[in-house]
Amino acid sequence: MTAYFGPPVLYLMRNISRAEIKNASYEQLGAMCERLREEIFRTVSSCGGHLSSNLGAVELTVALHRVFDFPHDKLVFDVGHQCYTHKLLSGRAALFHTLRKEGGLSGFPKREESEYDCYGAGHAGTAISAALGIAKARDLKGEDFDVIALVGDGSFQNGLIFEALNSLSVLKTRILIILNDNGMSISPTEGATHDVLNAIKEGVRDARLFEQFGLTYMGGVNGNSFESLLPALQEAKSRLKEGSVLLHVTTRKGLGYPFSENAPTETHGFGPKPAVHSEYPAALGEELIRLAEQDSRVVVVTAAMTDSLGLRPFFERFPERAFDVGICEEHACVLAAALASAGMRPYYAIYSTFLQRAFDEIIHDVCGQNLPVTFCIDHAGITGPDGETHQGVFDLSYLSFIPNLTVGIPKNIGELRGMLRMGAKLGGPLAIRYPSTGEAGEFSPVELGKFEILHSTMSDIIVFAAGERCIALAEEAAERLRGEVDFTLVNARFLRPLDTELLASRTERYVVTLEDNAVIGGLGDAIARFYRESGRTVRCFGYRDAFIPHGEAGALAEKYGLGREALISCLREFHARG
Amino acid sequence: MTAYFGPPVLYLMRNISRAEIKNASYEQLGAMCERLREEIFRTVSSCGGHLSSNLGAVELTVALHRVFDFPHDKLVFDVGHQCYTHKLLSGRAALFHTLRKEGGLSGFPKREESEYDCYGAGHAGTAISAALGIAKARDLKGEDFDVIALVGDGSFQNGLIFEALNSLSVLKTRILIILNDNGMSISPTEGATHDVLNAIKEGVRDARLFEQFGLTYMGGVNGNSFESLLPALQEAKSRLKEGSVLLHVTTRKGLGYPFSENAPTETHGFGPKPAVHSEYPAALGEELIRLAEQDSRVVVVTAAMTDSLGLRPFFERFPERAFDVGICEEHACVLAAALASAGMRPYYAIYSTFLQRAFDEIIHDVCGQNLPVTFCIDHAGITGPDGETHQGVFDLSYLSFIPNLTVGIPKNIGELRGMLRMGAKLGGPLAIRYPSTGEAGEFSPVELGKFEILHSTMSDIIVFAAGERCIALAEEAAERLRGEVDFTLVNARFLRPLDTELLASRTERYVVTLEDNAVIGGLGDAIARFYRESGRTVRCFGYRDAFIPHGEAGALAEKYGLGREALISCLREFHARG
Repeated sequence: MTAYFGPPVLYLMRNISRAEIKNASYEQLGAMCERLREEIFRTVSSCGGHLSSNLGAVELTVALHRVFDFPHDKLVFDVGHQCYTHKLLSGRAALFHTLRKEGGLSGFPKREESEYDCYGAGHAGTAISAALGIAKARDLKGEDFDVIALVGDGSFQNGLIFEALNSLSVLKTRILIILNDNGMSISPTEGATHDVLNAIKEGVRDARLFEQFGLTYMGGVNGNSFESLLPALQEAKSRLKEGSVLLHVTTRKGLGYPFSENAPTETHGFGPKPAVHSEYPAALGEELIRLAEQDSRVVVVTAAMTDSLGLRPFFERFPERAFDVGICEEHACVLAAALASAGMRPYYAIYSTFLQRAFDEIIHDVCGQNLPVTFCIDHAGITGPDGETHQGVFDLSYLSFIPNLTVGIPKNIGELRGMLRMGAKLGGPLAIRYPSTGEAGEFSPVELGKFEILHSTMSDIIVFAAGERCIALAEEAAERLRGEVDFTLVNARFLRPLDTELLASRTERYVVTLEDNAVIGGLGDAIARFYRESGRTVRCFGYRDAFIPHGEAGALAEKYGLGREALISCLREFHARG
Repeated sequence: MTAYFGPPVLYLMRNISRAEIKNASYEQLGAMCERLREEIFRTVSSCGGHLSSNLGAVELTVALHRVFDFPHDKLVFDVGHQCYTHKLLSGRAALFHTLRKEGGLSGFPKREESEYDCYGAGHAGTAISAALGIAKARDLKGEDFDVIALVGDGSFQNGLIFEALNSLSVLKTRILIILNDNGMSISPTEGATHDVLNAIKEGVRDARLFEQFGLTYMGGVNGNSFESLLPALQEAKSRLKEGSVLLHVTTRKGLGYPFSENAPTETHGFGPKPAVHSEYPAALGEELIRLAEQDSRVVVVTAAMTDSLGLRPFFERFPERAFDVGICEEHACVLAAALASAGMRPYYAIYSTFLQRAFDEIIHDVCGQNLPVTFCIDHAGITGPDGETHQGVFDLSYLSFIPNLTVGIPKNIGELRGMLRMGAKLGGPLAIRYPSTGEAGEFSPVELGKFEILHSTMSDIIVFAAGERCIALAEEAAERLRGEVDFTLVNARFLRPLDTELLASRTERYVVTLEDNAVIGGLGDAIARFYRESGRTVRCFGYRDAFIPHGEAGALAEKYGLGREALISCLREFHARG
């Protein structure tokens, strides 16, 4: 089967009833999994989404639905990259073709979507804590149901998981933890946890370690075989009456589609179209290699994002100077700070939304000590189909008030290159935030804290736009208003420091700001603060005070605050008043 | 010996030279420790600080200085509650009487203070990551020295520590981790990690577990005995040539002063004066008990702060409904979110600066799912002598842009009580931020999103002040300007939602805002945003864009942006212009 890239097919998978799952023979279950895999593959081919992790978890999810009673029992997903089969089995098959589309099904578990989704996710490591909270509430209310946390081995490295395991004995409740071990997070899983789990799986190490954590360990389960899975789940369910259980299940990421099985990293996530431009990551990889060749202090740190961020070539070229520590955003940040404290020039590459995890370490370790770490923040701004948990719309807000930090917003890939080169020389912390997709471009020099005038007029209106999406929006407005409304357009490429010299020198009475970020706390607020007692009229465009769900990025941007028509009418209004 | 609470004594401890430490007999080392303990006790009695953790680590630190060569070798502290002896032994004895005073020594390790402080701290769990970064930089530069991470057992529960241990094998470098196990974090340490470590210490569990993590385990070391410590450190140093080592050392928190030994929790931290008013925590404990008595959904979650936050009575009254998960701020936050998702009404109590650790979980788990968790944020605003890492001056900024969140800033303890009662009814997330100290007060009702006019005039100036410190400042200014400048004073007790009805109804042309928070991104920006196109003049007072070091809270507030004279001259200026 080859990938289907046309418009969504309105083929609706027949709903699979609870009775059907409960009563099916092993053979029928196998056929059911075939159908589920086909549906997942077809839908992801059309809508984008997470393919290989979902393909690997089909049998496991069917088996869970057979042994437990959802939504009475509660299934908590970690991250949620494995929830498609669960959606298909919980009354959402007919809507599955709307996956990741605006108004359609979310690609992640979501409470408001279904009572079968008892707890939402999107970031890694939350499932055990969440399962403990739900189980504890059950105990306090005197209710009776089972709570299951389904966690991939990639997440098992995350500190949150460990914190939750640590408190099992303090919380005195009962949960079933299913460790779905496919040997991969987004990239292959490495590290001691993985080694320990492997050693236990292979019988080399004593599983009684888990007893000390208040867990009964059950291993050796083939998560793609009902013969192995169903008895194991039944046993786990019955042991769960006595206390918490860890069931270690081995699955094959991407199972069922040879291409995906053989290339699980490449098929981890898909955009909805075949030819997505992801040139920012490629440029990042290229520039970092270039910098590392020139400056032996340059090193790279990332958190399970080697491939997604274009860093594979760097890891191959400089294996000694590249560190992928797994889904451990906080540790990666402190590691970068310490490398910088000892004279290196680390670049820490990460998605905007995941960097939220290292917020305290940005303040406490990097900026509090004024250390030269460069944050390469990909997936900034609205990212689209992954929804609330993956939009990168808060970074300008949460970086705006951190002392010592420089924050750059390149207008294109050329400026990303320019800012990356700045990082090695700066001597203090630098954050560069950019979207993932854009056209390739050559190096373009950037001067620290200097805006760029893109279009100069004698008009009384000035527009400060930051980043590719916003500059394009402003240019589109200029095009639309040509001959009617004129305005000066500035590439406002630094949030910190602002180009106060340029700001002070401008005399326009009407100021518009555009940013691909929440309108609270970002660039608009900073420019408005600068102009606060100047008598200017400042109007700021950015995303309104709401979590932005999944959908097409451009449409969402328009809808949530970067509206073309709203901008045009603002410019017309200012022109008329001027 | 009893505590000394008078003015600082200008008794300077004689510096102890490196040669003296290297050549001393065991007996002389013991005498040295006596002197060090005396100095620490006297200084903490006068300057405040962390007593019991420092007292417990005296021999260990002396032994480290004997066996290793600082600053050539690098000693990384976790948190830093154990660094006083290190400061006394590294040329800072003569300055030790300035501990925690403005311009004096910091109570925490600080890079800019001494080359012996290779990496700063203040929050828990960073030391192993930091040691790994420093060691890796050493390897890359071809240098030769030892790197030691000194970590308390309380920190060992933190997810960051686990993330760092997990990556030891990936990073392929060598560090010495000293686990200083005194069985306590701020409160007694609980949880599986503690149990496992205890079991290993007592020989019940196999220490080879650590081998899988790439560590050689050495245990059974009495950290208050040189006979035990020195050979163990020598051996660890030599094994360190082969790979990383974990040295498990047992110490007694508070050793040397019976009162402190017997009450290590109460003597963990001291303010500089005997009669500090810490009524906010007491009120929190009282109110939560009251709420829990009325509403069976009310539960309490905290992260190793049961005592510091006044929660001990709650834990005693409702042991089943109170969860202290150790220094695991992230896990505590997800646990609270999940409890709320299952129908409970959790209150998560924490210091402002430590809540930074759970920033992503506030967004992803609590507010993203619009769950009724109430954050009780103590130590908000400038806190003073603990310095940069403990000032609570960013919370209004980092909470200002999170959708679904209500943010309250009570003006006093009565309003804290009012807001806490609001939390149980609200049905969505609520953050209440308040300082630690204040006068006791009775319940005072608060209406959601409503400001309070404290003083109404016909003047053209209106002052919006948030929180106890700022309202006091405004009242002081009113007193000083009585008969000269009049202004209306508003208790701006909600950052989210703003009281837009009141704001819209006011006609004053001059608006002043006062907040005990960074001026970027907080209340002032929010009010200025509301008034942006109104033609009003808005001037905002809060802390300027800098990390605020240790000192007396009032003096720091004055110096860093909440200046009395600056406010008065602003009011005079507006009056003159009006």
